[in-house]
Amino acid sequence: MSKSYHVAVVGATGAVGVELLRVMERRDFPVTDLRLLASPRSLGKKLEFRAREYSVEALTRNSFAGIDLAFFSCGSILAVEFAPIARNAGAVVIDNSSAFRMEPKVPLVIPEINPEDVRGHRGIIANPNCTTAVALMALYPLHRVFGLCRVFAASYQAVSGSGARAIDELRRQIAASVEGGAAPAEVYPHPIAFNVLPQVDSFLENGYTKEEMKLQNEGRKMMHLPDFRASVTCVRVPVYRAHSVALSAQFTRPVSIDAARNALAKAPGIDLVDEPGKNLYPLPLSVAGKDRCQVGRLRVDCALENGLSLWVAGDQLLKGAALNAVQIAELL
Amino acid sequence: MSKSYHVAVVGATGAVGVELLRVMERRDFPVTDLRLLASPRSLGKKLEFRAREYSVEALTRNSFAGIDLAFFSCGSILAVEFAPIARNAGAVVIDNSSAFRMEPKVPLVIPEINPEDVRGHRGIIANPNCTTAVALMALYPLHRVFGLCRVFAASYQAVSGSGARAIDELRRQIAASVEGGAAPAEVYPHPIAFNVLPQVDSFLENGYTKEEMKLQNEGRKMMHLPDFRASVTCVRVPVYRAHSVALSAQFTRPVSIDAARNALAKAPGIDLVDEPGKNLYPLPLSVAGKDRCQVGRLRVDCALENGLSLWVAGDQLLKGAALNAVQIAELL
Repeated sequence: MSKSYHVAVVGATGAVGVELLRVMERRDFPVTDLRLLASPRSLGKKLEFRAREYSVEALTRNSFAGIDLAFFSCGSILAVEFAPIARNAGAVVIDNSSAFRMEPKVPLVIPEINPEDVRGHRGIIANPNCTTAVALMALYPLHRVFGLCRVFAASYQAVSGSGARAIDELRRQIAASVEGGAAPAEVYPHPIAFNVLPQVDSFLENGYTKEEMKLQNEGRKMMHLPDFRASVTCVRVPVYRAHSVALSAQFTRPVSIDAARNALAKAPGIDLVDEPGKNLYPLPLSVAGKDRCQVGRLRVDCALENGLSLWVAGDQLLKGAALNAVQIAELL
Repeated sequence: MSKSYHVAVVGATGAVGVELLRVMERRDFPVTDLRLLASPRSLGKKLEFRAREYSVEALTRNSFAGIDLAFFSCGSILAVEFAPIARNAGAVVIDNSSAFRMEPKVPLVIPEINPEDVRGHRGIIANPNCTTAVALMALYPLHRVFGLCRVFAASYQAVSGSGARAIDELRRQIAASVEGGAAPAEVYPHPIAFNVLPQVDSFLENGYTKEEMKLQNEGRKMMHLPDFRASVTCVRVPVYRAHSVALSAQFTRPVSIDAARNALAKAPGIDLVDEPGKNLYPLPLSVAGKDRCQVGRLRVDCALENGLSLWVAGDQLLKGAALNAVQIAELL
């Protein structure tokens, strides 16, 4: 590859795609040429990047000629079809879908955790699940000190995690409620305004959702911890942006709050916000639009040996998706 | 006591007080005479009960003459002062605050769990914390079958749990957001609209909030389980009414989904709503205004031996407060 890249963004008009452009701008990511790809219904839309307008092109088998780097943020079905095409055309694919994450030969990477895993990639690198990424930003620094063995987690996930249509759906339901009416649920199976939905993604045989198993499955792969266990309940909440996660984590070695604070204060990409006496703790509204995650509510867990309870929040469109993807590209 | 009661409601104009009147109406609770008591600022307000209007009187030391039964829903500070006065005037007090819950000689009762504990009361009976009540409605039937030892819980608590002013605060913040503005946070330390707050009640030395320790403390007392442990994160969410709780519970004996379903399906006061394939699970919007709690998302916990994960929702103004208080009165 050259030192400046011919970049394609697949799913450029989606919630993550738009963030990708902003992240590359902010981080001065070296882009020689940009190709914005999306489904035919976005054809002809224009998006700005570094003060220049780019037209959205339809995604086809010929979209990747001359592309060095292709960011995919288009969902699994299209990723399965088009990522191999992009790779075969010579691009390195960084895919935000779940399609390739658990394939043994595809690196799954959070640069703050396992940057070395990008080496030896075969043209496709996977970006982790957004809730998993936010949770691991806090768990991994603690793992390095105390040795993580298992986690109990409950998430509070923003609607932007379901894409731009879900943001509209919440907005419409909220506006209708103010006028005493109701707007239909289309993206979600139930109203999301003034409600919480204990379902993110579809259900598996074991009663968990796909989303709920990702912290265990992807966590094992990225932390190289094959015995790591995670019991998760994923819940959608009427928040526009930024996921939060309540965590009880058990470690193999004795924990202390001081050592935990130390580890978190030094950890890259995350800020310790933990002054309960001043009502300071991570909030989705505080981290929305921010690259860095926040961790707080740190306490010795009262139901686990060697356990810590904590609360993490992060902008899942950034650390959980666009930012992490660009960070992976920077590793290359 | 006679078979029909002279009843006082302290805090009659609050979120719980108003529900108490509705619950007594619905359950045909035998009321000979009703006295509505509140702070001086509610003086002269009128509330309807069984198609008759009652004026709200100011709470004084002389408010309880001739009263058989006094429902307190006025917070701890007033309860500490006035519950003994009411008792000394001959009333049985059913107190919704946390003031007396952990006093050894005060029964703390959920009628579906420990009705026998009301016997031997000394004039004051305590109503449990709302989140605790909702969680235990599902945990106790499982405890009877499998033997509960510990729980990891994260709550999704409605603003009505903070009273009528908090409902207004969410409503104002929502209305302002639709017009592109913002309304101030007064009841809560941060905006609650489009946000979640990992703080309910004040913080303790151990880093948990008071609210978070109630499931363990009150659960031990009501289930007569001195070794029960609960690690809880309590979170306020922008929902008007009904609390939800994500639970991972460990038992002493092996669990099975069939036996768990059976126990929950037969349990009083709670409905099993667990058809994930049809997107059916408990939701705050579904249980709001309902006496019965709902439990679903039942699955074998993937990080606990003898563990079950589940999701419970219940109207905390009803089962968590007013309904439970009237049920206690019915036991007497």
